[in-house]
Amino acid sequence: MYEHAAKLPEEKTTGRLEAFSDGVFAIAITLLVLELKVPDLTLAGISPVALGKALLQQWPSYVGLVTSFFTILIMWVHHHGIMRNVCRTDAWLHFANGCLLLGITFVPYPTSILASYLRTPAAKMAAGFYSGTFVFIAICFYLFIRAAFRKSLLSVSASAEFVAKTCRSYILGPPLYLLATLAAVVDERLSLAICTGLWIFWAATITRNTRA
Amino acid sequence: MYEHAAKLPEEKTTGRLEAFSDGVFAIAITLLVLELKVPDLTLAGISPVALGKALLQQWPSYVGLVTSFFTILIMWVHHHGIMRNVCRTDAWLHFANGCLLLGITFVPYPTSILASYLRTPAAKMAAGFYSGTFVFIAICFYLFIRAAFRKSLLSVSASAEFVAKTCRSYILGPPLYLLATLAAVVDERLSLAICTGLWIFWAATITRNTRA
Amino acid sequence: MYEHAAKLPEEKTTGRLEAFSDGVFAIAITLLVLELKVPDLTLAGISPVALGKALLQQWPSYVGLVTSFFTILIMWVHHHGIMRNVCRTDAWLHFANGCLLLGITFVPYPTSILASYLRTPAAKMAAGFYSGTFVFIAICFYLFIRAAFRKSLLSVSASAEFVAKTCRSYILGPPLYLLATLAAVVDERLSLAICTGLWIFWAATITRNTRA
Amino acid sequence: MYEHAAKLPEEKTTGRLEAFSDGVFAIAITLLVLELKVPDLTLAGISPVALGKALLQQWPSYVGLVTSFFTILIMWVHHHGIMRNVCRTDAWLHFANGCLLLGITFVPYPTSILASYLRTPAAKMAAGFYSGTFVFIAICFYLFIRAAFRKSLLSVSASAEFVAKTCRSYILGPPLYLLATLAAVVDERLSLAICTGLWIFWAATITRNTRA
Repeated sequence: MYEHAAKLPEEKTTGRLEAFSDGVFAIAITLLVLELKVPDLTLAGISPVALGKALLQQWPSYVGLVTSFFTILIMWVHHHGIMRNVCRTDAWLHFANGCLLLGITFVPYPTSILASYLRTPAAKMAAGFYSGTFVFIAICFYLFIRAAFRKSLLSVSASAEFVAKTCRSYILGPPLYLLATLAAVVDERLSLAICTGLWIFWAATITRNTRA
Repeated sequence: MYEHAAKLPEEKTTGRLEAFSDGVFAIAITLLVLELKVPDLTLAGISPVALGKALLQQWPSYVGLVTSFFTILIMWVHHHGIMRNVCRTDAWLHFANGCLLLGITFVPYPTSILASYLRTPAAKMAAGFYSGTFVFIAICFYLFIRAAFRKSLLSVSASAEFVAKTCRSYILGPPLYLLATLAAVVDERLSLAICTGLWIFWAATITRNTRA
Repeated sequence: MYEHAAKLPEEKTTGRLEAFSDGVFAIAITLLVLELKVPDLTLAGISPVALGKALLQQWPSYVGLVTSFFTILIMWVHHHGIMRNVCRTDAWLHFANGCLLLGITFVPYPTSILASYLRTPAAKMAAGFYSGTFVFIAICFYLFIRAAFRKSLLSVSASAEFVAKTCRSYILGPPLYLLATLAAVVDERLSLAICTGLWIFWAATITRNTRA
Repeated sequence: MYEHAAKLPEEKTTGRLEAFSDGVFAIAITLLVLELKVPDLTLAGISPVALGKALLQQWPSYVGLVTSFFTILIMWVHHHGIMRNVCRTDAWLHFANGCLLLGITFVPYPTSILASYLRTPAAKMAAGFYSGTFVFIAICFYLFIRAAFRKSLLSVSASAEFVAKTCRSYILGPPLYLLATLAAVVDERLSLAICTGLWIFWAATITRNTRA
């Protein structure tokens, strides 16, 4: 897109891939709200107290919304930090990024499943499906990083230390989300706690990495 | 994203945070329309008059739509004005901005609750939930301003007067929306009138501030 | 956003208003598809022929989708052409643009009403509500043009001829859509025919105007 | 938008058309998830096993989602590659691009039809409607390429070889999707297999073409 060819020592041609990815992240994060349903009070009787209770009883929806929101948001911040060090795209990066975006656009669905079944006997399956989605996304994210950090695409100003640190940090993603998925067999709350712990962990790594 | 490093005295690296935020604001504002439901006329009989009446009876939806639309729009204009004075991002700004965006993406839900229950006995709770959401957003907006206006991120061209004025104006947000929330206990219309008054007030501050 | 201050004779600061408007136009145009409902064949019996018939019977939805799609698209092309001649924003332009965007985000709703009631006795009201929405939008578009084409915001390179031609062409919008709204009293098909004629007319003006 | 007039030998004015198209592609691709419905287990009994089974039984939805996702994504990558060689827009390119975007925004609907009817006796019609949509899109894409690759719009740096290769490759689109549509008469799985084969084929052409 915004190329200033021949004026910069290194032409950055990743603008449209970044803009498209930004769009998908932003839309997926905003569609999460559509899983929240207006409570139907025809049985309970329509009163302020009944509405208040119904809104409180939707806590699994709020938990799912907040967890999914921050997981996607943190991933976007890292996506951003990674692409700042990349100055070219190729078919392979487009493909790895595409798989990652497929996972991201899918997130509202397991979030919705989780919200619908977290207070039912099917809670463990719902939590397992939710965490399992992030196993897929974490694998795609790792492939995306490997695709982005090849010498042919990397910016000359990218620090080898940042690249190594990021790869080390993200290889932990798939096994840890797999652990969260397995934990759902034992207890759905344990599974969600691990998912929450993970976005907080990756949020914490932003400080160090974006300085690089 | 579009960095022209080493050519400007001060490199502005907030492009992608702004683009992402623009996307979320734009999507949230457009999703509001999805809360409007096609009226079901099977009971009343399908006639032009019945459809016209049904469309008019949805006035609480229109009120909610317009109030939420302009509240988000005005917030976006201010977000824009604030970020023009900022030229770097860090983890803390990303986090404060993320919390703000969480609140923004949530708005279609209380708008929907308000539209569904404004003409019912549960109106006060619906209006309280609606205003209460903006208490959360106003707190996040204030944190966002404090995060953005730290010396390490501010552009050298930012005027101290603009920064001081903006901080003074936005510290009013949380208590005023809290007042709107408490007013819902008395009367839901009072609560909505305060919310409407507030976006008009902040719209009025655009003229002065964006000149700064 | 992407400012190259002090290097161009005239700094263009409309980038983020344009990006935000682009987002709203793009989302509104894409949400139109959500009004299309999967036909329920439980009564007719599930067979290829029944599904084919049901898909054909949705023609009012397709008519509404195509009309709304191109009306919004053409408006976006003109919005684009107009903003190319503007290099500053102010509160008034933000407000006029905001009202226009409110109208644009609303379009999926009357489109949905039209699709639901075009083959019913309430067709005239549905078509009138649909056309009536564009009266509002046409008024906002005209206000937007007047706000954008003030001397304090215009680019020095804007041609006076283009400005005059655009103003002349758009003052026709409100009365012509009002005519379409009134035509719905007589016949809903006449009303829709006028709406279709209008986007074709404005599409035709693109060729001439964007050359200016 | 981001014009650097008179400083580059050739001014690129396609920025906003690309940004708008990016938005529509990104939103359409993300809306696909909304066709996935939370399974209703009230009849089967709510248990982890029942939920797991219900999620597995939705495989036609997943097939439709993945096929539509990658078809749109690959089309976007090619759109991107094509527009890199174009440096001006005109009314005709806007119109051809508009028709293409109309087709893209429509995709979630046939995807939803496919998901709802792939395991029913109406599967052949559902697959035919799905493939038929891509016949329309493929025709629009070809018109878009012809509109974009006229001498008056092409960048001087565009290689004649790239232009010729792209035109040759895309003229295959309409007949091949027509074949997929006709195949639906015989077997819906054959039709979907051709659709899947096609996006893989076009993905494979990225490698060669984006190097050009």
